[in-house]
Amino acid sequence: MTICFVTTNRGKYEEASKLLRSFGIRVEWVNQECVEIQSDSLEEIAKRSAQEAAQKLKRPVFVEDAGLFIEALGGFPGPYSSYVYKTIGVLGVLKLMEGVENREAYFESVIAFCDLVRGELEAFSGRVYGRISLEPRGSHGFGYDPIFIPSEGNGRTFAEMSTEEKNTLSHRARALRAFASWLRNRRLV
Amino acid sequence: MTICFVTTNRGKYEEASKLLRSFGIRVEWVNQECVEIQSDSLEEIAKRSAQEAAQKLKRPVFVEDAGLFIEALGGFPGPYSSYVYKTIGVLGVLKLMEGVENREAYFESVIAFCDLVRGELEAFSGRVYGRISLEPRGSHGFGYDPIFIPSEGNGRTFAEMSTEEKNTLSHRARALRAFASWLRNRRLV
Repeated sequence: MTICFVTTNRGKYEEASKLLRSFGIRVEWVNQECVEIQSDSLEEIAKRSAQEAAQKLKRPVFVEDAGLFIEALGGFPGPYSSYVYKTIGVLGVLKLMEGVENREAYFESVIAFCDLVRGELEAFSGRVYGRISLEPRGSHGFGYDPIFIPSEGNGRTFAEMSTEEKNTLSHRARALRAFASWLRNRRLV
Repeated sequence: MTICFVTTNRGKYEEASKLLRSFGIRVEWVNQECVEIQSDSLEEIAKRSAQEAAQKLKRPVFVEDAGLFIEALGGFPGPYSSYVYKTIGVLGVLKLMEGVENREAYFESVIAFCDLVRGELEAFSGRVYGRISLEPRGSHGFGYDPIFIPSEGNGRTFAEMSTEEKNTLSHRARALRAFASWLRNRRLV
């Protein structure tokens, strides 16, 4: 079984491809931009993107969207994490958190799968809870990894972990595993 | 001549209706959410929304999108101004600007008009330049008005002006006037 993953991010493709292969699912990379709508809900954004991509490509596809949600900032930067990263960056987010005691945050990943022939549009999400560090630490990963300390990481930020270690904990891995289980059961139906 | 303005914002409808009436154009209010895509370009966002709304309503429509672009923050909050306002708010933006000397900013409004029968999809923009204040001032208007000092306002923020005065200077009024001139010329063709 082969399904298309529509993303311009090679790292995401490689992570998904490796994880899904262990479930017997082959991933084909479609290196294209997805149209994303504006919404406070990652699920709504991902589902619309998957629908649009499935219509265009005329094949079953999945897409992934992720964000960092900081409790004290009302969920900011949330669904707009990439834009915020490109503009005010990690240092901007730390500046907003200056003097803020509640540093609780989570990363969320949502995968949306669409198969128009079978009339399926499903979403799978994964979260990893943690807190925002006081300063950036570590050099691995990308994006907000240097300022996110997952609860299960002995106080290290994501950027202080190897890719392998981060992938065992990460929101994206959790969403991918939920997706893979669903796909496996679906084939039995 | 009557055209539909798709917006959930009564204030925007009233401003547009008043200004376009003086050009002999009647505006009908369609109080519905527009689907907005994620993009760094207000024009792209507004054009896609107008197309989608025109397809759904099967009539010529226009929509409006606006944002505050702060130079020192790489254009942030830009197209995501509403989301940023709802989460970190005016005080969050001021915190990001603490100790920042370059306070240049502009408001931009883009109106997109779509008439599928005539195959028209046009965008009109208006900007007002100014700077970010050191603290919020004034109680009129909405959104970022209390922290935006337009260059032509004698040092007052938008929130320290009456609606009438703000409307003569505002980005939205400028975009509306460009739109109205275009509509008037178009009818002569």
